[in-house]
Amino acid sequence: MPPIALLTDFGTRDWFVASMKGIIKGINPAADIIDITHEIEPGNIRDAAFALMACYQSFPPGTVFLVVVDPGVGGSRHPLGARVGDYFLAGPDNGVLSFVLNRHPEARVWTIENKAWFHTPLSVTFHGRDIFAPVGAHLSLGDNPNDMGLPCVQFEILEWLEVRATEISVIGSIIYIDRFGNAFSNLDTAFLHNLASSPSRVIIQNREPIPVCRYYQEQAKGKALALINSSGFLEIAVNGGSAAEVLDLSVGTVIEVL
Amino acid sequence: MPPIALLTDFGTRDWFVASMKGIIKGINPAADIIDITHEIEPGNIRDAAFALMACYQSFPPGTVFLVVVDPGVGGSRHPLGARVGDYFLAGPDNGVLSFVLNRHPEARVWTIENKAWFHTPLSVTFHGRDIFAPVGAHLSLGDNPNDMGLPCVQFEILEWLEVRATEISVIGSIIYIDRFGNAFSNLDTAFLHNLASSPSRVIIQNREPIPVCRYYQEQAKGKALALINSSGFLEIAVNGGSAAEVLDLSVGTVIEVL
Amino acid sequence: MPPIALLTDFGTRDWFVASMKGIIKGINPAADIIDITHEIEPGNIRDAAFALMACYQSFPPGTVFLVVVDPGVGGSRHPLGARVGDYFLAGPDNGVLSFVLNRHPEARVWTIENKAWFHTPLSVTFHGRDIFAPVGAHLSLGDNPNDMGLPCVQFEILEWLEVRATEISVIGSIIYIDRFGNAFSNLDTAFLHNLASSPSRVIIQNREPIPVCRYYQEQAKGKALALINSSGFLEIAVNGGSAAEVLDLSVGTVIEVL
Repeated sequence: MPPIALLTDFGTRDWFVASMKGIIKGINPAADIIDITHEIEPGNIRDAAFALMACYQSFPPGTVFLVVVDPGVGGSRHPLGARVGDYFLAGPDNGVLSFVLNRHPEARVWTIENKAWFHTPLSVTFHGRDIFAPVGAHLSLGDNPNDMGLPCVQFEILEWLEVRATEISVIGSIIYIDRFGNAFSNLDTAFLHNLASSPSRVIIQNREPIPVCRYYQEQAKGKALALINSSGFLEIAVNGGSAAEVLDLSVGTVIEVL
Repeated sequence: MPPIALLTDFGTRDWFVASMKGIIKGINPAADIIDITHEIEPGNIRDAAFALMACYQSFPPGTVFLVVVDPGVGGSRHPLGARVGDYFLAGPDNGVLSFVLNRHPEARVWTIENKAWFHTPLSVTFHGRDIFAPVGAHLSLGDNPNDMGLPCVQFEILEWLEVRATEISVIGSIIYIDRFGNAFSNLDTAFLHNLASSPSRVIIQNREPIPVCRYYQEQAKGKALALINSSGFLEIAVNGGSAAEVLDLSVGTVIEVL
Repeated sequence: MPPIALLTDFGTRDWFVASMKGIIKGINPAADIIDITHEIEPGNIRDAAFALMACYQSFPPGTVFLVVVDPGVGGSRHPLGARVGDYFLAGPDNGVLSFVLNRHPEARVWTIENKAWFHTPLSVTFHGRDIFAPVGAHLSLGDNPNDMGLPCVQFEILEWLEVRATEISVIGSIIYIDRFGNAFSNLDTAFLHNLASSPSRVIIQNREPIPVCRYYQEQAKGKALALINSSGFLEIAVNGGSAAEVLDLSVGTVIEVL
């Protein structure tokens, strides 16, 4: 039975995630539920979209991803279901699925409309429990994704932060900061292939260039470095410290790679 | 195999919850364990009682709820087990089960006394691991709840915050504040049926009346609203913000619904 | 199927733990994964070693413990696997396994070198996902631990904080502080047997002696006490409060037990 993986901004101090799990278990008692995280900053669709993209390929074929960061719940946005490769995704149509959808031109997308799959009474404020959880349970049981609703060809796409190549460099931005203060850029190995040779240093806001290394301890404790990280992105780090703090980085900070 | 759902104030940074899970797995290797939350404020029996009440009905029949918020552990309070509808509950006799027990006049309650079910050596400071975990494992295996101990007819009941009807309104209080700053009142739909018509506005401390809506985005960003939430309670919220902060709400704040 | 228990400093707000779980599920779809904690302070090897030691015996035989607090990831430290009693352990060779290894002179230890078990491409910054997760999955499937790599006889051992006996007392230190502010000393019941009689009071920095009790509520609210806790260590606590705050305790604070 493939896992159902949950990614939300519900936090872990209330019962919201547990309500989703209870509903899933009522439909598929053998469901194997895995938490990705529930600590996305409330309403931060971009962080959720990036986190999904960074980890989905670690999961086995058939995994169902429920991504519920949904500040517009109850409004006009549709709930979406999708099939990308061997995976299933479900989440609101607000861009939260779009970084993964962008990578899969073959993706099939549906608007979720099948009330027979919903938990009743359907609330207007908790579609995680009443729509996404039961849809995930049905998909994990192998129910036909066509039963979710109608094919959907137009959906919200989050803009990827701008990437530019100059004659000697590639220019991108910080797109995600993790709990250690490591700063992920929006430059993956594909973008960096635009450079004439392997990237060797990163310039941020007129500071001293930061060397590109292979691992954290190549630099002394407290020193900045860049590396291609385990998700395939160029990352700015400080050995034993927080790059976000030491270098004053935040989402959107521009970086230049030479 | 029905789930075992855990609700504690143990936090998640130490190993206390894992110790409970290890003991459960030793007795019932196939146990399906779900975390409700472990971030109840230490010793806050009322929050735990409310969280249990708000989510238990999302779980499938047979679910065993272990509720361990137990500031009096090792003292004179008894451990309790209960059967309510198709569910099992276990927790200390300090009121933590009482909001659910109150809803089930048919509930059967036992004091847990069967030492054969306890983990040994029995500690005096960690009944979550040594009493509630093994009791939950046994109940999840289908062992007879009568084997827990003797029937119990008198147990601690938490007072529900006062609700009053006037000629034109219903008066209640804030009873729970969630991670988003949404403030749950103690007024569920049953109480609101005392109003002549559907609730239309809420008055809090002489402020401008707050409109009752169906979902958050009916109001502009930053504006206050009330709605009947997914747990069936009247909730005070701010679209895209924290009602607790914006309106200075806390548990006990009086509200009047017209 | 025995559980795989995870203990890391990855936090829960990013996807790092989920990536480990996805990889495990790809190798062993029936793996039963339990989180011990992911909130070890980043890089705090000692806290992780203590947490593992405090809970491993609550788990059933066959449990595989993956302990990934690994500030030197990518550097020269080896990944280690071990068999202690009926348990398996895996983690970096930085001392994080050593408090448990110390208790098991019969332990067998290997350096993990079998690339056929690794996730590829092997990253240099995320051995939790690429080495420890797949190794744990293989061990949980019953694969031969000898296949991990070569036997290892020399590995990093963390020093246990000093314990000294005087004629009338035993002197130790605070070694761990939990979320409630309870302070665990490094004195377990074996050390305390050096006393002529049962321990009766604890002296910390010339303050009034603290009585040794059986449970928290033996003292009035706000009053300090000591007790032998559920992990078998002498603990300093404050009934209904934080001993660490009230008594200004931190890891290393010296205590004298009489």
